Amino acid sequence: MTNLSAVRPVFFVSDRTGITAENLGHALLTQFSTIKFEHHSLPFINTEEKARIAANTINLKAQTSPCQPLVFSTLIDDACRRIIDDTQAHIIDFFDAFIKPLEIELRTQSSHAAGLSHGISNEHVYMSRIDAVNFSLKNDDGISTKEYKDADVILIGVSRSGKTPTCLYLAMQFGLRAANYPLTESDMANGRLPEALQPYKDKLFGLLINAERLHTIREMRKQNSGYASMAQCQKETRMIRSLFDLEKIPHIDSSHISVEEIATSIIQQMKIHRPPIY
Amino acid sequence: MTNLSAVRPVFFVSDRTGITAENLGHALLTQFSTIKFEHHSLPFINTEEKARIAANTINLKAQTSPCQPLVFSTLIDDACRRIIDDTQAHIIDFFDAFIKPLEIELRTQSSHAAGLSHGISNEHVYMSRIDAVNFSLKNDDGISTKEYKDADVILIGVSRSGKTPTCLYLAMQFGLRAANYPLTESDMANGRLPEALQPYKDKLFGLLINAERLHTIREMRKQNSGYASMAQCQKETRMIRSLFDLEKIPHIDSSHISVEEIATSIIQQMKIHRPPIY
Repeated sequence: MTNLSAVRPVFFVSDRTGITAENLGHALLTQFSTIKFEHHSLPFINTEEKARIAANTINLKAQTSPCQPLVFSTLIDDACRRIIDDTQAHIIDFFDAFIKPLEIELRTQSSHAAGLSHGISNEHVYMSRIDAVNFSLKNDDGISTKEYKDADVILIGVSRSGKTPTCLYLAMQFGLRAANYPLTESDMANGRLPEALQPYKDKLFGLLINAERLHTIREMRKQNSGYASMAQCQKETRMIRSLFDLEKIPHIDSSHISVEEIATSIIQQMKIHRPPIY
Repeated sequence: MTNLSAVRPVFFVSDRTGITAENLGHALLTQFSTIKFEHHSLPFINTEEKARIAANTINLKAQTSPCQPLVFSTLIDDACRRIIDDTQAHIIDFFDAFIKPLEIELRTQSSHAAGLSHGISNEHVYMSRIDAVNFSLKNDDGISTKEYKDADVILIGVSRSGKTPTCLYLAMQFGLRAANYPLTESDMANGRLPEALQPYKDKLFGLLINAERLHTIREMRKQNSGYASMAQCQKETRMIRSLFDLEKIPHIDSSHISVEEIATSIIQQMKIHRPPIY
């Protein structure tokens, strides 16, 4: 029945956003790099009627595809789960695998309540994330330094070293107030931190980037400009490395790592207290 | 050994960011709402030495806490896993539970390669996410409508209905180019869409919010202002609902749902093709 050379359909079935199901399934599937997968997301499966529609979609795919579909499910409602379990797919049931052992270990019945994750389960934590996003936008790119006293972290680096996306990720995912300040060539001319940053030295975290990568990114923005030239990128990356060393600013090289990895490293290196992922 | 009334320490152990481990563990723990958990994140456990340090941290907690710690692990390296398995904790090993059954089902050995998730595994997909974040910032709050032709979606709604965080989430998580345009009272005065938006009608998605919620959020921003007053919030929310109905704009009420839920609903309702979560 299963044809290994063909594309294998994968469904992520969830009663809410499906983000947990998809993260989890993706982390597993990346371990099978020789197989091609075709991803389908089926979020908000929170009634038996929607479960039956989802089951039809899965069965239709099973009948028209050379490969049996895989289903990653984070459904909690028992009636919905039974409907999906009855499809012609190979089911990987997240709750089935862990909830029973956890009930035994914790000596408590689980609530079997759907969608407690990735919703507004804690209004206060949720609003702090939205506030943090607004803070990051107001304190992006050195627009203002007036609120730096309220920042959890202030990222510094040359233009296009990844400061803005990292700040927004720190805010959105972790509710951290992350500001950022771009260091220009003239800011770095005397080899010291700009005066505006000196009172907040313990909140500063530096992003390095190598000259080749910076050149590529700047070229996408302003092609053939002095700003994007290799010579300018080499100059600025050299200057900022000296500055971080001299001022003893903790830093990371962002050239080949993702925003998620940069953000996690910052929290770890700066020992920032953050709330659990909600 | 286990004291049910005390706080139970939980460790999320990962060879990369730990985001998958924490999402997964959190989704499970929300099912046990009567138990208090204390979260600890141990990311970047990618050498045996770091695994031994992590194991010491876990064992120290086990010895000083009235409750045995829980460990959620997404470690892949066998040597690191053995070190964590030997701690005095109850281990929930994500890969152990699913990788073997998947290897059998897929008739393929898994690569056992660490950190393929939440890194830059696909440079093109990663850069499209960063580009999308930049697009959303440039096209936030109606700053400019020149690039609307390149947008995947344009969110419309009254001020403070959740447009900006939703756009940034769509960009960051899914690499979608999301613009947003705030509708003021005068924009809505004639009951039709502003002219600037009319050419892009098929890309528009509306965010509704109820007057009470809007009033609360605006009060946090500009206390005791006309802008934040209940009367103004009632007026604008009534006007925008009529506008969406008249112009047949697909929409959702954002009052009590999270950015993740709003974003997922938009993708579903607008049938937007998005890449898999990387």
